[in-house]
Amino acid sequence: MPRPIRRLLLGHPLPTAAEVHERLTKTRALAVFASDALSSVAYGPEEILLALMIVGTGALHLSVPLGIAIGVLLVIVTTSYYQTIHAYPSGGGAYIVAHENLGRWPGLIAGSALLIDYVLTVAVSIAAGAAAVASALPELVPYKVALCVAAVLLVTWANLRGVRESGAVFALPTYGFIVLFLALIGVGMLRLLTGSLPPAPAPEDPAHILHPASGLTLFIILRAFASGCATLTGVEAISNGIPAFHQPESRNAGKTLIAMSVLLGAMLLGTTVLSQMMHVVPSEHETVISQIARVLFGGGPLYYALQAATALILVLAANTSFAGFPRLSAILARDGFLPRQMSNRGDRLVFANGIFVLAAFAIGLVILFGGQTHRLVPLYAVGVFLSFTLSQAGMVRHWALERGPRWSLKAAVNGLGAGVTGVVLLIVVGTKFVHGAWVVCLLIPATVAVLHTISRHYDDVAQQLSLGDVPPEERAAAAWQGPPKVVVPVSGIHRGTLAALRFARSLSGDVQAVTVAVSPEATAALQSKWAQWGAGVPLVVIESPYRSILEPLVDFLHETDARAPERGLAVVVLPEFVTASWWQHLLHNQTALLLKTLLVYRRRQSGEASRVVINVPFHLER
Amino acid sequence: MPRPIRRLLLGHPLPTAAEVHERLTKTRALAVFASDALSSVAYGPEEILLALMIVGTGALHLSVPLGIAIGVLLVIVTTSYYQTIHAYPSGGGAYIVAHENLGRWPGLIAGSALLIDYVLTVAVSIAAGAAAVASALPELVPYKVALCVAAVLLVTWANLRGVRESGAVFALPTYGFIVLFLALIGVGMLRLLTGSLPPAPAPEDPAHILHPASGLTLFIILRAFASGCATLTGVEAISNGIPAFHQPESRNAGKTLIAMSVLLGAMLLGTTVLSQMMHVVPSEHETVISQIARVLFGGGPLYYALQAATALILVLAANTSFAGFPRLSAILARDGFLPRQMSNRGDRLVFANGIFVLAAFAIGLVILFGGQTHRLVPLYAVGVFLSFTLSQAGMVRHWALERGPRWSLKAAVNGLGAGVTGVVLLIVVGTKFVHGAWVVCLLIPATVAVLHTISRHYDDVAQQLSLGDVPPEERAAAAWQGPPKVVVPVSGIHRGTLAALRFARSLSGDVQAVTVAVSPEATAALQSKWAQWGAGVPLVVIESPYRSILEPLVDFLHETDARAPERGLAVVVLPEFVTASWWQHLLHNQTALLLKTLLVYRRRQSGEASRVVINVPFHLER
Repeated sequence: MPRPIRRLLLGHPLPTAAEVHERLTKTRALAVFASDALSSVAYGPEEILLALMIVGTGALHLSVPLGIAIGVLLVIVTTSYYQTIHAYPSGGGAYIVAHENLGRWPGLIAGSALLIDYVLTVAVSIAAGAAAVASALPELVPYKVALCVAAVLLVTWANLRGVRESGAVFALPTYGFIVLFLALIGVGMLRLLTGSLPPAPAPEDPAHILHPASGLTLFIILRAFASGCATLTGVEAISNGIPAFHQPESRNAGKTLIAMSVLLGAMLLGTTVLSQMMHVVPSEHETVISQIARVLFGGGPLYYALQAATALILVLAANTSFAGFPRLSAILARDGFLPRQMSNRGDRLVFANGIFVLAAFAIGLVILFGGQTHRLVPLYAVGVFLSFTLSQAGMVRHWALERGPRWSLKAAVNGLGAGVTGVVLLIVVGTKFVHGAWVVCLLIPATVAVLHTISRHYDDVAQQLSLGDVPPEERAAAAWQGPPKVVVPVSGIHRGTLAALRFARSLSGDVQAVTVAVSPEATAALQSKWAQWGAGVPLVVIESPYRSILEPLVDFLHETDARAPERGLAVVVLPEFVTASWWQHLLHNQTALLLKTLLVYRRRQSGEASRVVINVPFHLER
Repeated sequence: MPRPIRRLLLGHPLPTAAEVHERLTKTRALAVFASDALSSVAYGPEEILLALMIVGTGALHLSVPLGIAIGVLLVIVTTSYYQTIHAYPSGGGAYIVAHENLGRWPGLIAGSALLIDYVLTVAVSIAAGAAAVASALPELVPYKVALCVAAVLLVTWANLRGVRESGAVFALPTYGFIVLFLALIGVGMLRLLTGSLPPAPAPEDPAHILHPASGLTLFIILRAFASGCATLTGVEAISNGIPAFHQPESRNAGKTLIAMSVLLGAMLLGTTVLSQMMHVVPSEHETVISQIARVLFGGGPLYYALQAATALILVLAANTSFAGFPRLSAILARDGFLPRQMSNRGDRLVFANGIFVLAAFAIGLVILFGGQTHRLVPLYAVGVFLSFTLSQAGMVRHWALERGPRWSLKAAVNGLGAGVTGVVLLIVVGTKFVHGAWVVCLLIPATVAVLHTISRHYDDVAQQLSLGDVPPEERAAAAWQGPPKVVVPVSGIHRGTLAALRFARSLSGDVQAVTVAVSPEATAALQSKWAQWGAGVPLVVIESPYRSILEPLVDFLHETDARAPERGLAVVVLPEFVTASWWQHLLHNQTALLLKTLLVYRRRQSGEASRVVINVPFHLER
């Protein structure tokens, strides 16, 4: 990218020393870390209703007991993570906890589940945010996918610039959402108590009733429960970010976690009760929360403010992944499980590669699923509960190994967490398998395989590079073998050719220029010019009956190799155009690139040794 | 890409000699070239109805006179192209005709309009195909964008493999579509004549009526006409493909053109008359043709066959662009208006780069416009009629220059064509400007500017490379300047380091190894190993207080440059890992890449000369 555009888009490069950690007060930390969890309330309760709806509106009353069950699960998960926070004050993500306590494979499984979850967090949050916007502005419904893609690109751009997890920026949308949402529930409860709660109008396009005849089964209830569990996504976020809290970090983080869970529980239960009491029927084009708010806030500015705050907090939730995914992939890269460049920080001190990868996958998912939250959620819960389970199981082992005071009680608490989230995981997989959970059940082992393969390759390379078994004759070969045979392919004489020739002659006395005769006139012209400009280097003309340029060239190189083989393979010297601006680069150097590609391709076919190809830069000033 | 996967996906590489031209009979040629034009009937007539619908169903009766007007326009355009076909037997696309007869700028404008049109043909055809599928299977409506993207990827893949414009493959869907469509019109006309034509049921989701109060104005009628002109897209396709016909090419191509236009005219008028007589109201989710066919074919297998044939012929129409766009961009690249690699043929003898560019733009458009044909069409007609006008104007000049027999009559015919299509162009721009035509009105000059800038750059380069003004002292400098100063950056000793050292020592006696001290232990270990493996090359240790590796290295290079400046800039020799398979390549060589990037970046900042960086390949076998 050209520097001025780059600057405009990304800002000035930052020195490494600029990397400071902002310490957050509890209020600000809640704003930063709670967006992921709290925003789940925008789609979680709705998923319960949608899952019940397939046997008709008559089953919708079950949403309240299911909401309570999920609330209980929230208490268990919160308690478990409260302990993790105190045991891992420097940050206890599922990968670290599982890797440290359970070993390589559980660590890789947790890491894979997390990577996939980060992608899904972006896709689900952005899709739910677009649904909130489209509920308020129905004319945007057909542009939902474009809206989602634009939102992902926006968040990507902000993160490439390097958004700090800045409390100030996060505070307004998060607290705006909390206040407006609690106000909505408050108004609803007040009118419920005074007996003036109005019913929601039946939607024009209710969600599909699939088999009303078959009636309610335990399977359908379990599936509704599993669907609602999406509300719990993001609860673990605080455990990754403990070092960002003021001292004492763990204490403050623990308190923030509890505050967040209380808020989330209240919102979850409030939404389920109101939707039940107001007889809300889930619709294709309008979210449940929008339906409730439209009635209770009367469709006025408060309603639009809540929809806007919902969309914003969902974008912030997506943004959380843009911090988490690159950070986790940098850790995995440092551990040798992902390509090393995932841990390179760019100009702006961000892990740009991780950001690109995350954005690409999230955009792909959003397009694939037509930007529909409901289709994405079944994929989501699998990874979340798998990493919950592994992380809590890891904690059990952590306490057992540590054997500190009251270790068995602590182990029992995390054991309960592991057990319950494990059962939920089974329920999610069992009931949502055909609805999309199978995708993640395939993706997780595939990702584990990728991580393992990369790690094995790095091990292999370390072995191959090792000097331990270098035989004595190779040590001797490290001695000087005399100047190389140099070949300079030439298609015409110009300043670039002269630069290449000059450099070639500085390397060796054995330089040959070579040209492929495509047209007799051009070859004759080249030969006559060569006398003047060739500086005494012999020019070899090779014929090409089929007008191919590269193949005869490669054959000539092989002939040169065969001559005086003790002096190694012939070296190719080519001019390379260094253009004045970046876009011009796209207009040059294709022959050199093609030759290199062909040489690599030939080598893979024949197993022959690789040859050195030297590009001699020639500057173009405009 | 790994060879086995590449083979599986793309097939075996083809030798250049395999490029043969299949000659097509008229029947087969109609199948190949008519898909673009005939498929337009799937959305063109519907656009007339949609444009009239904004003032309510009362205006829909105007579709018949408008259909007739477009039919007259079709006759004029066909006659004009009939003449082009005879004047340019080797293929007379708008770019060639305009460039040859009207000069550089009109040629560039026509070329830009065509490039944009090819992209829009793909987007519109695929979106209309998805609409045909979603009309028959309404549950796919929310996945329309994903469906479109998948279809574009499928066509891209087929073209990377190298689909021939094979008559056999095209015949079934094209003739299937023609037969089924004519059957539909036949059945409809028969029932119209026997007075038993049933009305179509009112759709559940009619298209929006925007301002029924404002009533019908001339502007709205003109806009409906402009919308319907989308039916004419693709009529020019035959004029690009004349060499594919059996001899006498022009005669056969001319006859095929007339057959195609007669079919298109019949389909267009049949559809407008039937939709009028059956009181079809355009709907959001079901196409007009689907509504007609559902009633007349009774929703049975014939109905599904027609929808499938419609989708297929629309995919074929998109496929036409995948032949046309890469071919045109290769021509533009050869003329120096696009990057040269656009004219490189890949393994399978296709212009792969052109195919990639087309696919990327088409996918972007489809996502941006939510896969809605109706939003894309206003963009489409501008470019089509602009290239019609320029091509016909070019033909007028062609006859005037040629002054063959009856030249003035021929010029008059093309002049009429140019005039009428020019007026239509003005109508399209005037009436559809705010609906999207403005996008293309900006894109065409932007594309012209890009083509012009690229061409100017290539001219600049030719000048800069020219030897005409090389001063005598530089000729002298072409003499040998002695072996270069060589610097080998080292981070550890391994086999790759040894290979780089060995090569460096073969180039010059002046070799220095250099390492950046990041940790004192690692540096001490390196130094002690160096005694054994360094082969007498001095190892320089440079300090880096800020843990940065690249910056101190670059500073060291500058110091080396300053020493004995008459011997030029220091050359950098780095090991490069050549991996056993393609994916492993992504896991290596980042430092080398970063160093090169930094050097280029520094150079652009300071204007200093570029240095040669030599990568010495080291083979990894696993």
